[in-house]
Amino acid sequence: MTAYLNLRKRFARIAALNEAASVVSWDASTMMPDGGAEARGEQMAVLAGLAHELLTHPGMAEDLDKAERPNDEWDSVNLDLMRVAHQRASALPGDLVEAVTKAASVCETIWRSARPASDFGMVKDSLAEVVKLTREAAGILGEALGLSAYDALLTGYQRGILSAEVEGIFAGYEAFLKGALPEVEALQAARPTEVLPAGPYPADVQEAVCRRLAEAAGLDFRHARLDRSAHPFCGGTPSDVRITNRYDEEDFCAALMGVLHETGHAMYEQGLPKDWRRQLVGEAAGMAAHESQSLIIEMQAVRSDAYLGYLAPVLSEAFGKAVTVAGLKGRLRRVERSFIRVEADEMTYPAHVILRFRLEQAMIAGDLAVADLPGAWNDGSEGILGIRPPDDRRGCLQDIHWHCGLLGYFPTYSLGAMAAAQLMAAARRAVPGLDEGFARGDFSGLLGWLRENVHGCGSRLGFNELLRRATGEVLNPGAFEGYLRGRYLGS
Amino acid sequence: MTAYLNLRKRFARIAALNEAASVVSWDASTMMPDGGAEARGEQMAVLAGLAHELLTHPGMAEDLDKAERPNDEWDSVNLDLMRVAHQRASALPGDLVEAVTKAASVCETIWRSARPASDFGMVKDSLAEVVKLTREAAGILGEALGLSAYDALLTGYQRGILSAEVEGIFAGYEAFLKGALPEVEALQAARPTEVLPAGPYPADVQEAVCRRLAEAAGLDFRHARLDRSAHPFCGGTPSDVRITNRYDEEDFCAALMGVLHETGHAMYEQGLPKDWRRQLVGEAAGMAAHESQSLIIEMQAVRSDAYLGYLAPVLSEAFGKAVTVAGLKGRLRRVERSFIRVEADEMTYPAHVILRFRLEQAMIAGDLAVADLPGAWNDGSEGILGIRPPDDRRGCLQDIHWHCGLLGYFPTYSLGAMAAAQLMAAARRAVPGLDEGFARGDFSGLLGWLRENVHGCGSRLGFNELLRRATGEVLNPGAFEGYLRGRYLGS
Repeated sequence: MTAYLNLRKRFARIAALNEAASVVSWDASTMMPDGGAEARGEQMAVLAGLAHELLTHPGMAEDLDKAERPNDEWDSVNLDLMRVAHQRASALPGDLVEAVTKAASVCETIWRSARPASDFGMVKDSLAEVVKLTREAAGILGEALGLSAYDALLTGYQRGILSAEVEGIFAGYEAFLKGALPEVEALQAARPTEVLPAGPYPADVQEAVCRRLAEAAGLDFRHARLDRSAHPFCGGTPSDVRITNRYDEEDFCAALMGVLHETGHAMYEQGLPKDWRRQLVGEAAGMAAHESQSLIIEMQAVRSDAYLGYLAPVLSEAFGKAVTVAGLKGRLRRVERSFIRVEADEMTYPAHVILRFRLEQAMIAGDLAVADLPGAWNDGSEGILGIRPPDDRRGCLQDIHWHCGLLGYFPTYSLGAMAAAQLMAAARRAVPGLDEGFARGDFSGLLGWLRENVHGCGSRLGFNELLRRATGEVLNPGAFEGYLRGRYLGS
Repeated sequence: MTAYLNLRKRFARIAALNEAASVVSWDASTMMPDGGAEARGEQMAVLAGLAHELLTHPGMAEDLDKAERPNDEWDSVNLDLMRVAHQRASALPGDLVEAVTKAASVCETIWRSARPASDFGMVKDSLAEVVKLTREAAGILGEALGLSAYDALLTGYQRGILSAEVEGIFAGYEAFLKGALPEVEALQAARPTEVLPAGPYPADVQEAVCRRLAEAAGLDFRHARLDRSAHPFCGGTPSDVRITNRYDEEDFCAALMGVLHETGHAMYEQGLPKDWRRQLVGEAAGMAAHESQSLIIEMQAVRSDAYLGYLAPVLSEAFGKAVTVAGLKGRLRRVERSFIRVEADEMTYPAHVILRFRLEQAMIAGDLAVADLPGAWNDGSEGILGIRPPDDRRGCLQDIHWHCGLLGYFPTYSLGAMAAAQLMAAARRAVPGLDEGFARGDFSGLLGWLRENVHGCGSRLGFNELLRRATGEVLNPGAFEGYLRGRYLGS
């Protein structure tokens, strides 16, 4: 067992190093004065480089060769995860890793100007370089792991589900949307929409409300902080999780949904199994699993009738304005075809993801040239949502992901949304009175079930197996579609 | 030159890693929720361990063997500093380093209970263990570096001055104090002391004043932050320096002096030569040099007649109370024999340091057993200050230093104070109108001179050589004594 115990020590050390990197990265987004940016970039590169060196160290390979399969199931999965992590880190030549990183950094910088200018020509060549190098890396990784190039990318973000299955799920959702969306639109058009009172909603009052609601939802602030940053995120470490938020004084809803979304992520981190801290098997199960935990809070629980009923008087009192349930529904539960993914409602959101999933698959397969991306994007948008972006700013330039080298990531958003609905349905079956709790602002029933069925499982199970044990079946978009029908069509 | 250029890369990497460690450590003192403490300790240990591994890497030794002396003076000193850093890191067996770290950690924890209980017996054995192991390590280091055991410790904190010279300087100061202290006491007793208005001084008003004065003193907040912590300190990195402070609502003076002290440290960091960033020769010249920069601001400039004249109306307006120059002098320029070092005035402070210097020398030489420390301390205090601590809480238990393994550090406080006086005298000779500037709250004349003669020199010069080039002579306590006579005896 010595080799495996050595491996545990090696990975614990890498994890502690990555934790430090996470704190340093949080600081860069929340605390750092502008003048520290250049040096900070170099500090983060050194930490990442050291983590990579530790992971690809010859002694690591020797221990992996020698290690015998442990009897304990957790240890056994842990060893498997170690092998894959080492394979992934070792498969790529250092030159290629460096080339991808550099190309992505260049492309991201250009993209920051190209997007507001809506000028795809500016970024086309550098994006083509990113895609070319990512294809090459994905091919090498896929060969090492016995996967297609695209699946090598996808499983890097979420193991336990492959693109062939995702294709079927997404095709099904597209068909569902074709029918349901016009129905919802017709129903909405026939009803008046109540508007929330005009601002201002002072930022410090918003922040105090956000903190109070996060705490009430179950976030343990002995092991967490809430701060401000340009874009909300969840960072830090399981024992010291850092969520951030931003505040628009004309609209409190964005901040409110932002903090509860990040609270879902943060509670997942806080609920990971403490006995497996700093081991791969003790980490969150992947990006789709993580998104399911933010969305089960933000979408499933918070936008439920029960919780909105609790929220309206709380907000009315905090802001000294008449915030009604109808007003909240008008703002938070309105479905609309739109161009921008991050502003989309939960029903049309997957359409944005499906579009990107198909395009990035085609680019990685070599079937779509980057030069043809704007046209393919606009055709795809028209096909799936029935609207055509008037410019690339509202089309293929809107997201940072591809430009900074993230290909294969997009599906995790909608796999997470679908899993959230499936998990919520299972929780409602298993725990009586969940909605009565929501009506009092109390998430403890839901959280207890998630602790046992998701958080406490760490990375022991792949995505589908996690869902199968928690809900009785692998990912099935039926729960999500049923939930959308219930919420938006009352059926 | 390849070997030397490799070394530059190696040390730049270590420096970037240490910068990240510094941010993580700052976070632990300012931002981290309590629940993060345990994991943070492990994160910091991993970063320190990695830095040590990089410094003692076999490739480092090979490059040091191969490196030829560069022509450039800075590069040449840089190479020397690299050799010493590598020697220091490599000389000690890993087991001994670990044993010292563990013993110090245990002892510090016990000391935290022993001090308030004033119970030396509690901590005696663990302190004896720390001293024993530190002696052993100092002996090994001294052998490797061709120094006495004590000087091996001292030069780890400040190179360019040895204990034999410090002994002479301190003996001279003791003689000076024997004469001057009773004179000052008699003069003070004959004069009434004006008392500052009673509080409260709201913490947020204090903090705003502190920020404004730090900025006016020359701290560049594009590359700095001011936050709160239990004890004020200066951390971070040269391009992102982090100072902290604490606020007592009954007494604004502690916060004011605290922030200006840390501002002196921070401006030193900001003034280090940018061309040599992340090289040893580009770092601050040592702890005594650093203390000279905090004290030249806090003691020399801020407590000058000119600056107090500027300060009184600023504070009166900020707090809405009558803060007079006489009140500030009564609080900030009062000399008094006392038991506690950190509360001592600038005239008696060196007596506290001299006592500790002699005791730690004796412990490292093996001439003083830890069991005999309380008696030796009290005898020494009586000898140098004429007062005998009534208990160990106000005697040998008051400082954390020895208990956490810092031996050889104490002298740097008073060497810094003496150097500050010598540098200020030289700056006054070189830059006309310094005090006229202070009277307007303007430190730019002083800062400009310090940038050129201290900050910009990095670590190119040892302590005495730095002073010789800046002031015309090596450390000479005469400047400090003359300044004290002028300030406290009007002579």
